Amino acid sequence: MNKSRLEAFSDGVFAIAITLLILDVRLPEVSYDHLWQALKEIIPNILAYVMSFLVIGMYWVGHHTSFRIVAKTDGVLLWLNILLLLCISFIPFPTSMLGKYPQGEIPLIIYGCNLLATNFIAFLMIKYLHHHPELGSEHFHDKYFNDQMPVFGTVNGSYLLAIFLAHYSPLASYLIYGVILILLIVIYVRRTR
Amino acid sequence: MNKSRLEAFSDGVFAIAITLLILDVRLPEVSYDHLWQALKEIIPNILAYVMSFLVIGMYWVGHHTSFRIVAKTDGVLLWLNILLLLCISFIPFPTSMLGKYPQGEIPLIIYGCNLLATNFIAFLMIKYLHHHPELGSEHFHDKYFNDQMPVFGTVNGSYLLAIFLAHYSPLASYLIYGVILILLIVIYVRRTR
Amino acid sequence: MNKSRLEAFSDGVFAIAITLLILDVRLPEVSYDHLWQALKEIIPNILAYVMSFLVIGMYWVGHHTSFRIVAKTDGVLLWLNILLLLCISFIPFPTSMLGKYPQGEIPLIIYGCNLLATNFIAFLMIKYLHHHPELGSEHFHDKYFNDQMPVFGTVNGSYLLAIFLAHYSPLASYLIYGVILILLIVIYVRRTR
Amino acid sequence: MNKSRLEAFSDGVFAIAITLLILDVRLPEVSYDHLWQALKEIIPNILAYVMSFLVIGMYWVGHHTSFRIVAKTDGVLLWLNILLLLCISFIPFPTSMLGKYPQGEIPLIIYGCNLLATNFIAFLMIKYLHHHPELGSEHFHDKYFNDQMPVFGTVNGSYLLAIFLAHYSPLASYLIYGVILILLIVIYVRRTR
Repeated sequence: MNKSRLEAFSDGVFAIAITLLILDVRLPEVSYDHLWQALKEIIPNILAYVMSFLVIGMYWVGHHTSFRIVAKTDGVLLWLNILLLLCISFIPFPTSMLGKYPQGEIPLIIYGCNLLATNFIAFLMIKYLHHHPELGSEHFHDKYFNDQMPVFGTVNGSYLLAIFLAHYSPLASYLIYGVILILLIVIYVRRTR
Repeated sequence: MNKSRLEAFSDGVFAIAITLLILDVRLPEVSYDHLWQALKEIIPNILAYVMSFLVIGMYWVGHHTSFRIVAKTDGVLLWLNILLLLCISFIPFPTSMLGKYPQGEIPLIIYGCNLLATNFIAFLMIKYLHHHPELGSEHFHDKYFNDQMPVFGTVNGSYLLAIFLAHYSPLASYLIYGVILILLIVIYVRRTR
Repeated sequence: MNKSRLEAFSDGVFAIAITLLILDVRLPEVSYDHLWQALKEIIPNILAYVMSFLVIGMYWVGHHTSFRIVAKTDGVLLWLNILLLLCISFIPFPTSMLGKYPQGEIPLIIYGCNLLATNFIAFLMIKYLHHHPELGSEHFHDKYFNDQMPVFGTVNGSYLLAIFLAHYSPLASYLIYGVILILLIVIYVRRTR
Repeated sequence: MNKSRLEAFSDGVFAIAITLLILDVRLPEVSYDHLWQALKEIIPNILAYVMSFLVIGMYWVGHHTSFRIVAKTDGVLLWLNILLLLCISFIPFPTSMLGKYPQGEIPLIIYGCNLLATNFIAFLMIKYLHHHPELGSEHFHDKYFNDQMPVFGTVNGSYLLAIFLAHYSPLASYLIYGVILILLIVIYVRRTR
């Protein structure tokens, strides 16, 4: 399997999933007199759109960064990548729920589980690569893997906390998702060369 | 016709078809109190999403693997490829039916016919290539074709059985689709280099 | 403007427009007992899906074939190409109407006008290229343009006839669209190398 | 971050956003007898489709033109680009509102704000590049930046005027959007080489 076709296909899925998010920002059927009111009611949908756009964008950047250390792929990596895309493509669904029930705990829990599942697959991919240096490119170093692990731990621990807190305080849960998102963007901004 | 533009266009259609599947995982309009109940009701949609995601992913991998033996394309191969994409793009429709009527036989039959039609076009493409070695790349060997045929026979025979069993036992039919899917993934994981 | 990015963007729009067609093949909300009946009612939608899939596929093939004679693009060609994509992206709309009102004349007329508009833009692109040989590649020959014109005349004349006949006999109109589609596919199959 | 993967991903998002616009050109459920009437009622949707198609097409052309001066990207440019795509992907939403409430001021205001936000991000990208000549390609000249600024000023000043006028005369507001669009297309047609 050619690495560049794998990247092109993945880019396609990322690009489509990120663009489909806007389909859930829809006005209900109202007369013009109630348009401001209707707009106010879909503010959660717009915020969910922005959050998930940045989340998927972040995964896309992470995908790129990770594939810099890959020189060629094999069947296992290929299918792990398909599972990763399955999780990414699923994000519009909990996003849509967040927009509809912004104050409920269920969408926050499902959103978090979706991110945890995505990260778990990403973790498997990175572990697999770590044990198959023959697939690695010249950017492949043990340092890469050692750098990832504390970030992985922090991010997923925080998501677990956000899921747990969703029941007691949805606001705290949102804050965690937001802070982690900003943190990851900052890390990626610094790392990307 | 340039082979790489054909691959890029096909990748685009595969990526879009696979990502559109999530549009059929939608909650009905319910109040928050009935959200768990509504989620339970769309579990078949989620399972259908996962199955079809893996099925389309598998066809994408198969498409890649097959095009390794192609060096250039002609008009016939190009149009067979368009017919193949027509079948792939159709998959979201029976998937949506499976999600809505998970216990009925009709969606299982239509799903199976969709897969059989896709495989039939793929078979025609491979047969055509076999008779036109001038289109082949350096990976083109008779062995490739001989390896494919028993898999083709087993897979399509099983799909026919699944279609036939749908009336008597939808569960058996699902099992066949699932087992074949896992079997094909295992085969591809081993073959992909 | 780089020719390959123009082609990649165009391929993207073609791939998305062709795959979005399936979104109009949807079952109404019926109980399982009425599923066969509901399926029968959406047969026109399925046929419209197949027809438009092949039509857009044909324009994609034509786009490729035409761009073989182009070496570089300028602003005019770029914007004509965007107008062409505007027409292509519009095709799902009359397709959806054909599926809903298969026996009415209006969808047939709008479908035909959409195709005529697409061909008109394609004609402008080819005329522009003809007068700017400095944009042409090594495949650029007067013969190319002379070969196109009789096909253009026949196809668009037939579409005009189909639009005119829609009022008197929708069936005759469908037949013309179908025959022209098959004719064009046969021509492209022979020409593509 | 590889420049060509950034372009490929951006092209994907542009291509999808531009093609999704057609999903908002939909007929209400009417009997065939009321089809002409229904078509008349969705003329604003069709016009909004055409306008936004050209607007997104224009941003795509602008994106290309701008990236000619870029040789490599860094984390800041990458994330500014993601924010730019976030704004582009949002365009289908105010477009849908324009189609539904063509004579109201609110959609015109939101449409204008969307374009202003997009231009603001584009401005930040260009400013950032200006201060980081090490990212520039051989097309990177101060002249490029000096040429952009008067266009930027005129366009955004006009959008502000259109937003302000929306309350008093929606027609004047539409005229401004239309004239600016045509003006930008003319500028791009002349500049593109």
